[in-house]
Amino acid sequence: MMGSALCVPLADGGHDVRLVGTHLDEAIIAELKRTGTHPKLDVRLAESIKPYGIDELGAAMDGAEVIALGVSSAGIGWATERIAPHVRADRPLFMITKGLDWDGHRLRVLPDVVRDGLPAPMRDRVQPAAVAGPCIAGELARRVPSCVVVAGRDAAVLKRIAALIRTDYYHVWTSTDVVGCETCAALKNAYAMAIAFGEGMHEQRGGAAGSVAMHNLESAIFAQSVVEMGRIVAALGGAVDTAVALAGVGDLDVTTNGGRTGRFGRLLGLGLSLVEAVARMEGATLECLEIIAVMRAATMAMAQRGELGADALPLLDHLAEVVLDGAPVAVPLGRFFGG
Amino acid sequence: MMGSALCVPLADGGHDVRLVGTHLDEAIIAELKRTGTHPKLDVRLAESIKPYGIDELGAAMDGAEVIALGVSSAGIGWATERIAPHVRADRPLFMITKGLDWDGHRLRVLPDVVRDGLPAPMRDRVQPAAVAGPCIAGELARRVPSCVVVAGRDAAVLKRIAALIRTDYYHVWTSTDVVGCETCAALKNAYAMAIAFGEGMHEQRGGAAGSVAMHNLESAIFAQSVVEMGRIVAALGGAVDTAVALAGVGDLDVTTNGGRTGRFGRLLGLGLSLVEAVARMEGATLECLEIIAVMRAATMAMAQRGELGADALPLLDHLAEVVLDGAPVAVPLGRFFGG
Repeated sequence: MMGSALCVPLADGGHDVRLVGTHLDEAIIAELKRTGTHPKLDVRLAESIKPYGIDELGAAMDGAEVIALGVSSAGIGWATERIAPHVRADRPLFMITKGLDWDGHRLRVLPDVVRDGLPAPMRDRVQPAAVAGPCIAGELARRVPSCVVVAGRDAAVLKRIAALIRTDYYHVWTSTDVVGCETCAALKNAYAMAIAFGEGMHEQRGGAAGSVAMHNLESAIFAQSVVEMGRIVAALGGAVDTAVALAGVGDLDVTTNGGRTGRFGRLLGLGLSLVEAVARMEGATLECLEIIAVMRAATMAMAQRGELGADALPLLDHLAEVVLDGAPVAVPLGRFFGG
Repeated sequence: MMGSALCVPLADGGHDVRLVGTHLDEAIIAELKRTGTHPKLDVRLAESIKPYGIDELGAAMDGAEVIALGVSSAGIGWATERIAPHVRADRPLFMITKGLDWDGHRLRVLPDVVRDGLPAPMRDRVQPAAVAGPCIAGELARRVPSCVVVAGRDAAVLKRIAALIRTDYYHVWTSTDVVGCETCAALKNAYAMAIAFGEGMHEQRGGAAGSVAMHNLESAIFAQSVVEMGRIVAALGGAVDTAVALAGVGDLDVTTNGGRTGRFGRLLGLGLSLVEAVARMEGATLECLEIIAVMRAATMAMAQRGELGADALPLLDHLAEVVLDGAPVAVPLGRFFGG
């Protein structure tokens, strides 16, 4: 969705765009080739956006100025292998896939995972970047004014990418705090689930939508989420300021305004068991489950090594109890903000 | 509203509560005396909450352990005069009124304004406190779990107030950063108005409520709001962390979830002129207009004195153009986040 949406500002910026689908996107690519309309975004794409199947990857890469990667986080290893032959030092690579990787010792942001997955000579010559910030794909595809940040380790590359993708409605900043930006971008799915608990709890108490709700609770959880994101970013060596800007507060806010994660959090807030809530989601990808599992392993190790204080993350710890251990929702407000 | 709502946790905590109305609250006090139900909150108050008219202030204060002040910001001077004879060094005073006062040279938080308004001997012996954080009155009156912070300059007094008002659903922290907390609490009305622009702009473009909206824009404005609140707090000598916690992010989030300020911002986003938008609000108190006027005067002087950088507050500056000069809404996204 976001990969396709990103094509819109690129095409508006005068670029020829080649949109390559994976084997999971065959129906979308076929529909685009037949009608020019993206069936999931329900938007007709410009003529300068050409759809390609994965078997046409070589042709799509021929002469490409820049590569953007938008597979699901589970597909990052696969995608890295596929694009590796096409990566070049003078061809910037950036991604919109979100997630964190725990290898048993280090928590890595995905641009670093992709770099580490490239063949040895290229690995030291390429610094993949990532786009973060509050950006719902369906809105970007309809040219809603949007603000994002391109984060990576090479400032010159970031500047080049930003200049390529920027339009009068797609506002692009750059940040070398790739750890901070990508950590917040991944964590927001966990915390947005928590913020949605209030909606379910309100309904469970018999409150109708729109009546006096549980916004007080939701906003306390929102504030604690930003505090915890800042703590995690600091522990990983990122800048706390990042948690306060587009990639942190901004993306968390937009994610709470809808989408799968919020619907799932509402179900848990209603009092459904984990199994029931997952079943109700009918197979939808739940990034929140993945990031919470990664973070439990990572934060336990980080706390043991003294990189995180005791009870530094009471909300995230509770989310792990709920979605990994099946504990009922009981938000530990009394342990928020230092207790 | 909030003064009455605060009586609920106080009564639940086992306290006798005396709820004193001003001359503007005569109908509410009469209804409470007659039926025990608060007509605006639509909640029946406990027997231990006794309503008093302003002419009964002396009786209400007799033997009071603590004084809470909840008039509108415009009434602070009047209220300070009325309560002055009842203020004592061993009787904590805290307020829920929000605002900032610009005296032509200094920007003062309201607890300082109240203290400065007390007679000379008492002025040096009392440090008024304030309650901040995400708390909608109608929700607190219905015992929705809520998190707030009591801020003031005397840590011992804060601890005493927190112990008095805390219940199992009203979670209370303390902070000696009264400047940071109260600055955020006042500014949130200005910034919540801006976040609501997107809703109006979406409707104005013909979008139906619930369809793909302008959440990307709203969340970018939200993030910039938090950045600007942090800058203002820092310039006033408060702690930037405060802008990230309950009084900043938390209260801003809850305020965007409804209320007058958001309705007014939506009207401006729809393209209505200032005069038209104000007329549509039918005389409702618009705290956002007041705080934006105060902040224009204050930030101009602060910038001249070098306390704020050039273009440090592009969003707040634009809000002043809209509500003080009648300029159309044109959010300067390109100047956000340092440009």
